[in-house]
Amino acid sequence: MIEYGHGGDIYGSHGKKVIDFSANINPLGMPQRAKDAILENIESYCAYPDPFCRELKQAIGSFEKVEERCIVCGNGAADLIYRIVLGLKPQKALLLAPTFSEYEAALISCGCEPEYFLLKEENGFRVKAEIADRITSDIDMVFICNPNNPTGAAAEREVIETIARKCDDCGAVLVLDECFMDFLAETHEYSLKDALHEYKRTVILKAFTKIFAMAGIRLGYLLCADEKICAAVTMAGQPWSVSTVASKCGIAALSDPFHIRKTKEYIKTQRAYLTEEMKKCGIKCFDGKANYILLKTNRDFGKRMRKYGILVRSCENYRGLSEEFFRIAVKTKQENEYFIESIHKEYRLSWQNP
Amino acid sequence: MIEYGHGGDIYGSHGKKVIDFSANINPLGMPQRAKDAILENIESYCAYPDPFCRELKQAIGSFEKVEERCIVCGNGAADLIYRIVLGLKPQKALLLAPTFSEYEAALISCGCEPEYFLLKEENGFRVKAEIADRITSDIDMVFICNPNNPTGAAAEREVIETIARKCDDCGAVLVLDECFMDFLAETHEYSLKDALHEYKRTVILKAFTKIFAMAGIRLGYLLCADEKICAAVTMAGQPWSVSTVASKCGIAALSDPFHIRKTKEYIKTQRAYLTEEMKKCGIKCFDGKANYILLKTNRDFGKRMRKYGILVRSCENYRGLSEEFFRIAVKTKQENEYFIESIHKEYRLSWQNP
Repeated sequence: MIEYGHGGDIYGSHGKKVIDFSANINPLGMPQRAKDAILENIESYCAYPDPFCRELKQAIGSFEKVEERCIVCGNGAADLIYRIVLGLKPQKALLLAPTFSEYEAALISCGCEPEYFLLKEENGFRVKAEIADRITSDIDMVFICNPNNPTGAAAEREVIETIARKCDDCGAVLVLDECFMDFLAETHEYSLKDALHEYKRTVILKAFTKIFAMAGIRLGYLLCADEKICAAVTMAGQPWSVSTVASKCGIAALSDPFHIRKTKEYIKTQRAYLTEEMKKCGIKCFDGKANYILLKTNRDFGKRMRKYGILVRSCENYRGLSEEFFRIAVKTKQENEYFIESIHKEYRLSWQNP
Repeated sequence: MIEYGHGGDIYGSHGKKVIDFSANINPLGMPQRAKDAILENIESYCAYPDPFCRELKQAIGSFEKVEERCIVCGNGAADLIYRIVLGLKPQKALLLAPTFSEYEAALISCGCEPEYFLLKEENGFRVKAEIADRITSDIDMVFICNPNNPTGAAAEREVIETIARKCDDCGAVLVLDECFMDFLAETHEYSLKDALHEYKRTVILKAFTKIFAMAGIRLGYLLCADEKICAAVTMAGQPWSVSTVASKCGIAALSDPFHIRKTKEYIKTQRAYLTEEMKKCGIKCFDGKANYILLKTNRDFGKRMRKYGILVRSCENYRGLSEEFFRIAVKTKQENEYFIESIHKEYRLSWQNP
């Protein structure tokens, strides 16, 4: 039996309606023009997709202000994680703990046993410059997720630059997963995107999945100034990994100038609301900047929320966390209010019937 | 510069209209109900796809008459080729020459140098049982494409059974690519699908790409009775390789009972027409069963057809073929007639102006 260790599996609930707080998708949904593009291009899906993603790279290039030759597109960012590892074949890699588990899975599938840098709960699981001391000449690849998943903590740009410099010095490739970066109100204080040419061995991962709510469409990309790295990743997989649907949908999503701006504001307000209310209920919330919140509370929290039709992400299977940790997504105002009401209701009930 | 060695790249023609005979897509197009399903499910694309492809596997299972646990789905059959190789890590593999080039590319990306069994032109590039002599105990994986791409030649079931038995004896995995099998009028004389449980180390590859004209959607699957092989392939990649769009579209496509039947008949008639007419023009056509035809003619054939807006597949980059070989798809009656007219026109012109 193959186990699935992520959030968002809403398909196993046999028709029962769930409110999914376990996957970190933009609560504002997919931009309307992206949906329209899926329909408008329906007659083009018979043909093979463009193996070079020409139109899509043009759109991403102008959105990210990056040359097209520095872009590789994939079937979601997760596809690119596997292709980076297969294409570059690291022998020794360094990972955060806790962090997104697909880095580890990809490394193991290619025969690389990763090492772990344990983030400390007492520091709010924040990534600090001290991690650079662990990047030595025998390390080939370092994965940093910024803001980190599932903690939501964002490392400042100076910290990331220290890590990137050390990677350069040691000949390691830094895979910097910025898939949640566009949810932050102050992206420029954290992203390394505008320093791609300075840190040639840094690969920045991004996805349409979360910020454009296109998880079911599958579209991600990486940015890297080193042509050899881009070529190796491109060759480590089929030529048609990006569907025409994803391409057309992604191009249309990027053409909406307000979507990301609206999202940043919405997430900031709603995250503050959720955090404040949960704290009132005695639930420990870790400081974060992303569209999700890491909690520490009773280990039966997830089971209890299920009674209200709410699915949260148990963080028990994250290396470095335990069954008292849960991650919840910041969702719509209405859903967030229902979530808080449900906690109140459950707490009151359990007080009456302990 | 990364080279693209396949047909179907219609995106580099800068807006010029081309009739694409270079990609082997069903000329009857995508079933209408598959297109409808893309639209009907548009609100579900925000969420992550089902990592277990539950609904899709049910539909494939009942279509193929195979248990769901024997199915692994992927982002097109090409995705599965890479995952089979990454998951099973063959040290030594045997390939046909000529054949579909992604087997070789996938093997090389995982550090496996393939060996080749050269098919002979004088035998019409047919796969015969003698290949079994080349399957020795040091071979871990054998790729057989049936009908073979680009030759169109189909190996009889007895031949394939001899190969599968020899693979079993030698502990090799047989990857049997039947992606074009459903185009054949007499599928049961060639397919090994109903003997999955007899040949446990045989993996049958199939795709929605060609038969349902869903190349731009990306959907493929494999059938294999060995649970360990299925698990290894599943783990060698991200959990969300199949988009929700592909899933919904594929389920709807399979629900059309007439699509494949109509296709088989159409292809048979149109392939006969094209072959006969090309032979009249002095173009050598190899006997094939699939929805494409291998030709041998003047090396400038491709360039000449381009003048008429026709894109054909040069087979120069196939191992074992040369620049005199071309592959053309069997397309709609109207397109096929235009193709033949263009040949006549071009021949006449070149006779007037040699």
